[in-house]
Amino acid sequence: MSLKVNFRYCDKYIGNDIAAMQQEISAAHALLRNGTGAGSDYLGWVDLPVNYDKEEFARIKKAADKIKSDSEVLVVLGIGGSYLGARAAIEFIKSNNYNLIKKDTPDIYYGGNTLSSSAVAELVSLIDGRDFSVNVISKSGTTTETAVAFRIFKKLCEDRYGKEEAAKRIYVTTDRQKGALKALADKEGYETFVVPDDVGGRYSVLTAVGLLPIAAAGIDIDKLMLGAADARERYMNADISSNECYKYAAVRNILYRAGKKIEIMTSYEPSVTMWNEWLKQLFGESEGKDGKGIYPSSVIFSTDLHSMGQYIQQGERDLFETVLWVENPSADYAVPFDETDGDGLNFLAGRSMHSINKNAHDGTVLAHFDGEVPNILITVDRQDEYSLGEMIYFFELACGISGYVLGVNPFNQPGVESYKKNMFALLGKPGYEAEAEKLKTRLD
Amino acid sequence: MSLKVNFRYCDKYIGNDIAAMQQEISAAHALLRNGTGAGSDYLGWVDLPVNYDKEEFARIKKAADKIKSDSEVLVVLGIGGSYLGARAAIEFIKSNNYNLIKKDTPDIYYGGNTLSSSAVAELVSLIDGRDFSVNVISKSGTTTETAVAFRIFKKLCEDRYGKEEAAKRIYVTTDRQKGALKALADKEGYETFVVPDDVGGRYSVLTAVGLLPIAAAGIDIDKLMLGAADARERYMNADISSNECYKYAAVRNILYRAGKKIEIMTSYEPSVTMWNEWLKQLFGESEGKDGKGIYPSSVIFSTDLHSMGQYIQQGERDLFETVLWVENPSADYAVPFDETDGDGLNFLAGRSMHSINKNAHDGTVLAHFDGEVPNILITVDRQDEYSLGEMIYFFELACGISGYVLGVNPFNQPGVESYKKNMFALLGKPGYEAEAEKLKTRLD
Repeated sequence: MSLKVNFRYCDKYIGNDIAAMQQEISAAHALLRNGTGAGSDYLGWVDLPVNYDKEEFARIKKAADKIKSDSEVLVVLGIGGSYLGARAAIEFIKSNNYNLIKKDTPDIYYGGNTLSSSAVAELVSLIDGRDFSVNVISKSGTTTETAVAFRIFKKLCEDRYGKEEAAKRIYVTTDRQKGALKALADKEGYETFVVPDDVGGRYSVLTAVGLLPIAAAGIDIDKLMLGAADARERYMNADISSNECYKYAAVRNILYRAGKKIEIMTSYEPSVTMWNEWLKQLFGESEGKDGKGIYPSSVIFSTDLHSMGQYIQQGERDLFETVLWVENPSADYAVPFDETDGDGLNFLAGRSMHSINKNAHDGTVLAHFDGEVPNILITVDRQDEYSLGEMIYFFELACGISGYVLGVNPFNQPGVESYKKNMFALLGKPGYEAEAEKLKTRLD
Repeated sequence: MSLKVNFRYCDKYIGNDIAAMQQEISAAHALLRNGTGAGSDYLGWVDLPVNYDKEEFARIKKAADKIKSDSEVLVVLGIGGSYLGARAAIEFIKSNNYNLIKKDTPDIYYGGNTLSSSAVAELVSLIDGRDFSVNVISKSGTTTETAVAFRIFKKLCEDRYGKEEAAKRIYVTTDRQKGALKALADKEGYETFVVPDDVGGRYSVLTAVGLLPIAAAGIDIDKLMLGAADARERYMNADISSNECYKYAAVRNILYRAGKKIEIMTSYEPSVTMWNEWLKQLFGESEGKDGKGIYPSSVIFSTDLHSMGQYIQQGERDLFETVLWVENPSADYAVPFDETDGDGLNFLAGRSMHSINKNAHDGTVLAHFDGEVPNILITVDRQDEYSLGEMIYFFELACGISGYVLGVNPFNQPGVESYKKNMFALLGKPGYEAEAEKLKTRLD
C-alpha cells in the first residue's frame, strides 16, 4: 500500500457533514456494486484489475516486445480516453520528456487526437527515416480525428514497408467483433486488441487501450494491474470512516455544495502534468452534465505558483485543491555550496532538492489553507507502476461514487455529440444536409 | 493587421451593457494612459514596442547568434514571467515539439522553474555531452527555484568549459544595477541584459527576458516588435465601438458580473498550448485578488473536446470561451482516399485537413453557444512573429484595462509571497525562526 489521503487541511469545511454524508455514500455504493445505477452497462472497470483477459494480456506483452525490437517510434492514434491514459502513465513513470531522454524503448508520438494540419504534418516529418509501428485505438473506427490520421499513417506505413510488412506493424485496438476498424483489421490481417463493451473511454487505461502503448514504453503492466487490484480490495467497504476513497468522494461533494466549484489537481512533479489531464477528463466528463459538476483544473507547483499562485491565494474563494505528493523522487540533487553566497542560499547548501520541494509543498498547503482554499493531500511512495495502479483505481472509483452522489450518470457523455453533429453537417456528411443549411446561416 | 475579434457569439449576453460600460472603460483608459491608477510604477510595457533600448536589442541578436553558433542546447533558467513568455513564443511560432523537430537552432530546455529533484536531474542528463549555454533570468537573483538551478548549471558549465569559457556561455538577464545576479555577473564578466524596473514579470516577454531565448530559437524579433507596435497604435482609442481590445476587456467584465466566472482560452492548434499558459499567468495574476477575478483555464480542441468538452457543453453554466483561430496553417495535408471506405470518410477524401479543422471550430462554437457558453472569437492570419506581437500587446492591454474595470491593481501579485514566506520558514532561513516554530506545529 502506497497511496494515503490526509484530510487535515479541509476538516474545518467538512465538520459534521461527513457523518450526514454516510447515507448518500452508502446509496451510491449500492448503485455501483449492484449495478442498479445509471450507466450500469459501463461498470466493467470495477473488477477489471482481477478479471481481465489473461490471454490478451500476454499478447499485449508480446506485441510490445516486437514493437520494442523493430521500431524506433510507436505512433499511437487515439483521442480522449484512447490517448490520455497511456500518455499519462508513460509520462508519470518515465518522464514528461520521454521522447527526449536516452532510453532503450521506442519514442512514442500521439496522433489522431487533433484536426490540426500543422500538427499532422509535423508528426509525419518526425517519423521520417525512422522505423515505426502504429497502434490505432478506436472503438467504432469512425472517430473523425483518429480515422483521418489512420488513413494517413496506414498509407505511410504501406509505402515504406509494403502491404505485407505494414500489416505486421499496425496494431488495432477496437471493438471485439463489429465496426469499421475491426472489419479492416480482419481483412488486412492486423493483430487486434479489444476495447471492452462495458468500459468507457475514460475508464479504459487498464484495458488494451492503455496497456499496449504503456508496455511498449517498457513499463511493467503486471505491477500496474497489481496496484489497481490491491486498491480494489482496499476500497470495497461502504464505511466512509475506513474508506479513504469514499471519503474523498464525499468531501468533494461537501465542498461543492459549499460553493467550492473548482477542483485544482496539484502536484510538485512536472511528470504529473499529463496525469492531471487524465484526471480532468475522468472527472469533467463524468460529472459535468445536467448543469452541474465541479470544474476540473490543474497546476504543477512550484512552477505555477508563479502564474496561477496569485489567483489561488487571493482570487474568488470557490476553489479547492487535491494535492499529489510523491515521497521518493526518481533522482535527487544536492544544492551546491557557493563561496560568494550572493544569492544568500548557502543555508541550503548540501541539502537535497527533494527536501526543499517538500518544504515548498508544506508551506504552500498551509498558505492556501489559510487563504480559505481547502487542501486534500494525497501521497504515494514513488512514481512507479504499483503506485500508479493504485492511483488509477482510487480515482476511477472515487469518480463513480462521487458522480452518483452528485446525482448524474457518471458513465455517459451525451454532450460530446453536439460538436460532432455540427461538424458533420458543416463537413457535408451525407444525411446532414438540412442541418447544414441551418448552421451555415448562423456563421459569418 | 492580422488580429481580428468577433463578438457575434456572445452578443446576446452583452446587450445594452456595452454602452453602459463605456464610462468605466474610459475611466480605466485614463488611469492607464495617465499613470494615475494602482500599480502605475509598472506601466513600462505600454510603450515598450516603440520605446525599447535599441543598443541592447542589437546585443540580444548578437548573443543569440553566438548561442546558435556554439551551442546545441540553450538552458533557460527562470520561473513565471521569466519563463512562460519565451516558451509560449517559441512553441507558438516553431512548434510545441520544438526540441524534437529537425532544425538549425539549438534545443531549448527550461529549468529553474521547479524544485523537483527528478526534473533537475533529468535536465542535467539532457545536456550530457552536448555543447550548451545558459541564460539565467531573475530580477533579484534570489528567486529560490532559479537561484538553486543556477548554482547547479553554473558549476556544470565551469566544470565542462573552465571558468573563462563558461563566462562566455552564461548570459544574465537581471536588474540594471542592483541585486545578487548583477553583482555576480559583474564579478565573473557575464554579459548582462536588463529586466526593466517598470515592467512586471508577466508583462516582460518583449524585454530581454523573453527576447534572448526567442531570438536564440531563430525567431525574428524585429517582426515581433513590429506586430506589437502596430497593435499599440491600433488600440489607442478609448471608444469601445472602435477598439476591439477595449471591447474585449469590457465584455469580460460584463460576462463576469453575469456569473460567467471561468474563462477558457481555447485553440485548435497544439502549438498554442504554452501561449494559453502565458495567458493564464497574465490574467490570473493580474485579476485574481481581493476575492475577485475570472478563473483562467485552457483547452486545445478538438483534442480536449474528448476530455473537457462534455463539461463545457453541459456542466455548470459559469463559463465563457475566448477562442483563437489561426487562418493559415504552417502546413496542410489532404485526406487520403480509401477504396474500402470502411470508416465512411471518403466524402472527405482530397479535402484539406485545415478546412476540416475549421468546420470543427465553427461547429463547436455554435454548439457551445447553444449550450449557453458565450464565445469570443479571435483570429490571426498565421503563427508568425508579426501576429504574435499583435497578440501579446492585445492581451496585455486588455488585461490592464480589464483589471482596472474590475477594481484591482492589475500589476501587483501580493499573494505570491504567502507560500514563499512559509517555505523560507520551513527551510530554516535565518530570520524566520519564530514563524517556523508556529508552522511546524501545524504539520503532521
